[in-house]
Amino acid sequence: MTTLDDRTTSPAGPTVADVSDPSRLAEPHEAISAEELQLAARNHGIPLEALRYDVTPAGLHYLLIHYDIPEVDPATHALTIGGAVDRPLTVSLADLRLRPRVTRQVTLECAGNGRALLHPRPVSQPWLVEAVGNAEWTGTPLAPLLREAGLGPDAVDIVFTGADHGVERGVEQDYQRALPVADALREEVLLAYEMNGAPLLPQHGAPLRLIVPGWYGMAHVKWLRSIEVRTEPFEGYQNAVAYRVRQDADDPGVPVTRIEPRALVRPPGFPDFMSRRRVLRPGPCTVDGRAWSGHAPVVGVEVTTDGGESWASAELDPADSGDFAWRRWRYEWTAAPGRYVLGARATDASGRTQPVEQPWNRGGFANNLVQRVEVVVPAE
Amino acid sequence: MTTLDDRTTSPAGPTVADVSDPSRLAEPHEAISAEELQLAARNHGIPLEALRYDVTPAGLHYLLIHYDIPEVDPATHALTIGGAVDRPLTVSLADLRLRPRVTRQVTLECAGNGRALLHPRPVSQPWLVEAVGNAEWTGTPLAPLLREAGLGPDAVDIVFTGADHGVERGVEQDYQRALPVADALREEVLLAYEMNGAPLLPQHGAPLRLIVPGWYGMAHVKWLRSIEVRTEPFEGYQNAVAYRVRQDADDPGVPVTRIEPRALVRPPGFPDFMSRRRVLRPGPCTVDGRAWSGHAPVVGVEVTTDGGESWASAELDPADSGDFAWRRWRYEWTAAPGRYVLGARATDASGRTQPVEQPWNRGGFANNLVQRVEVVVPAE
Repeated sequence: MTTLDDRTTSPAGPTVADVSDPSRLAEPHEAISAEELQLAARNHGIPLEALRYDVTPAGLHYLLIHYDIPEVDPATHALTIGGAVDRPLTVSLADLRLRPRVTRQVTLECAGNGRALLHPRPVSQPWLVEAVGNAEWTGTPLAPLLREAGLGPDAVDIVFTGADHGVERGVEQDYQRALPVADALREEVLLAYEMNGAPLLPQHGAPLRLIVPGWYGMAHVKWLRSIEVRTEPFEGYQNAVAYRVRQDADDPGVPVTRIEPRALVRPPGFPDFMSRRRVLRPGPCTVDGRAWSGHAPVVGVEVTTDGGESWASAELDPADSGDFAWRRWRYEWTAAPGRYVLGARATDASGRTQPVEQPWNRGGFANNLVQRVEVVVPAE
Repeated sequence: MTTLDDRTTSPAGPTVADVSDPSRLAEPHEAISAEELQLAARNHGIPLEALRYDVTPAGLHYLLIHYDIPEVDPATHALTIGGAVDRPLTVSLADLRLRPRVTRQVTLECAGNGRALLHPRPVSQPWLVEAVGNAEWTGTPLAPLLREAGLGPDAVDIVFTGADHGVERGVEQDYQRALPVADALREEVLLAYEMNGAPLLPQHGAPLRLIVPGWYGMAHVKWLRSIEVRTEPFEGYQNAVAYRVRQDADDPGVPVTRIEPRALVRPPGFPDFMSRRRVLRPGPCTVDGRAWSGHAPVVGVEVTTDGGESWASAELDPADSGDFAWRRWRYEWTAAPGRYVLGARATDASGRTQPVEQPWNRGGFANNLVQRVEVVVPAE
C-alpha cells in the first residue's frame, strides 16, 4: 500500500485527489493487496452454507458499500423528486408508507462478483463467488410517484442520489446512478423501506433505497435522498466511468445492467477451517443450491462433480417466490470415496448460460464463471 | 492455493486430513493468499464508521466462524450439563428462558484481530483492526445452573461444545473450548439467547451461546449444545493447539484469555472507495472512537495525528454501559491542511496499554497495535 509518507505534496498543498490511486490490474502472479483486503474485511459475502435459507437472514446478505454507511435520521429524511417534471415533490418516509405497499423477493448480486478469480485481476473489491443474497423488500412502486410528479415526454434518464459521499479515482461525489426512463418505469421497481419485514438496516440503505429487480447491485441506490429527471443522458461517474464492461482503459464500453445467470452449490459435508475444502461421507447426498438470472427465468441447472468435464441435470424447485428471486435446485448424488470438484451452471429462458472459462473485462464485471467446490469423500 | 489435482492419494484412498494444509507463515513479502481471501469474504469485521453506534447493529458486528453456520432448531434444541456433576441436567431453551434473565453490554473481539498486519504474517483469518463489536446480550447466568448440577470440589475445567463441526490441521472436531472452573463460575458469564433484544441470529450462535465478558471471542462458544465438567485439564484442539501465544511451532505457549486494551478511531471525513484514505475539510473536528480492555476498566485514551510521534489525551465518556462494554472517547482537533496519520491508544487500570511496534507471536493472537488512519486535509 502506498502510504502518505511516500507521496509528494504539490506546492499548493494537498488535494482531494491525493487520496486516490490510479485504477490498475494486478501483476500476473500478484496476490491480494492490502487495499483489496481492507475492502474484503468491510464488504462481506454470503457464507455459502446460508444458501440453505430461502430468504437470506439479516447480516448474511452480501454488502458492497462504496464510501461510509451514512447516518440518516428516518424521522426527518425526505426524498425529493425534481428535474424535468411538472410538479416537483418532496415526500417523507411517512408519506411513502401511506402509499400502496408491495413486498417482493429479489435476488441482488454485486456486479463485481467473481472479480478476484479473473486473470489478470482488476484491483477492486475482491469477490470470489459470494456477493449475493435474496431478501424480501417492502416499499412502494416508483412509477406512480414519477407519474404524479409529471414526467415529460422528453425524459431520458432518471438520476438517483444517495446520502453516501466519497472519492473514486480522484472524483469527489455523492453515490449517484441513473436508469433509463423505460427501466425506471417498470412496475417491479420499488422505493423500499423494509427488508425481511423489518426497517432497513443502516448497511442496507436505511431508511430508504431503490430496488431494481433483475439488475446488479449498483442500480439499487441506498440511502436514497433525491430523484432527478433528465432530458439528456446522465454522464455521472458511476454510469459513465465505473460499471462499464470494457476491454481496456480507453474502451468506452457498454453499461453493466442486468444480472447474468448463475447457480451456486451449497457446499455439502463439512469444511476445513482454512482451506474451506469439504469432507463428505460416502453414500447418497442431495447436492443443492440456488440459481438466478436477471434477464429471464432460470429454466435449467446442470451439475458437475468433475470440475466441468461432465454435466447432469438438476431438478428445479417451483418458482413460487416470483420472477426476481433465486430458485432452489437439487441433484441426487451417490458419493464414492475420491476427490471431486463440484459446480453448477444455470441457463435462463433467454438462452444465456455460464462459462467454464471466463471472458475477461477490465473492471471485472458481470462474471458468472462456474464455481469450484473441492470435496474429499474419505474411504471409510 | 493447492488444488485437489495437485495432491496424491494414499493407496488406502483419501482421508479427512487431506482437506487440511500445514500451518505456515507467509513469506516476507507475500501478499494475501486465496485461502485468506476466502476467509475474509465470509468473516467480516465492523465497518469502522459503525463505531458511531453505542450498540453495534445486527450485521455490523464482527464474525469469526470456524466451520459452517450449523442449522439448529430452537424448538427441539437442548443443552446437556454432565461430566463430573452430581445431577446431570438437560435443559430446553424454554427452561432457560424461565430462569433469571440478565442483559449485559459486552464488547467481543477476535483473538486474531490485527493478524494481517504482523511481519511475518501467520496465514489464517486476515484481520486488520476491525474484528470487534459491542452488543447487548441477554440470557441467564451460568454459575447457578452449574451449582444446581452439583459441581464437585475436584472440578478443574468446564468444556463447552457447539453444534458446529469441521476440520483443522487434519483434526476433525466439534468446536469445543474449556474454561477453568473459576472463570466459568464468574457471575458475569451468561448462557445467551438474545442479542440486541432479538433472538440470536444464525451467525451469532442461534439459539444459544456462551458469553464470557472480557475474554476474546474464541471463549464465547456459539450454537452451544453441551457443558461437561472435567476433573482433569482439557486437552482439546482449541485449547491445547490453537489459541495459544507461542513464539514458534514447538513452543507450548500460554493460553489466549482476556482482551488486551485497544482503542479505535472512527475515521473522520469521507473515504476514497479503494484506498480508504480520508478527506477531511480544514477546521475544528471532533475525533472520536471506542476503547476497551478485558483486563480492567479503560482509564485513559491518547490520540496521535502524526503516526505515533506525539500524543494528546482524549476525553472519556462515562462508563455507564457496564464494565465489559467499550467506552466512547473524543478529542477536539483543529485540522490544518496537510497529511496525517491518526491513531489512538488505550490504557487500562491494570497498567496495560498498546504498542506502536507489535510484539510478534506465531498464531497472531492478542494483538493491539495502534491503528493507522490516513487523512488528507486539502488546502481550500
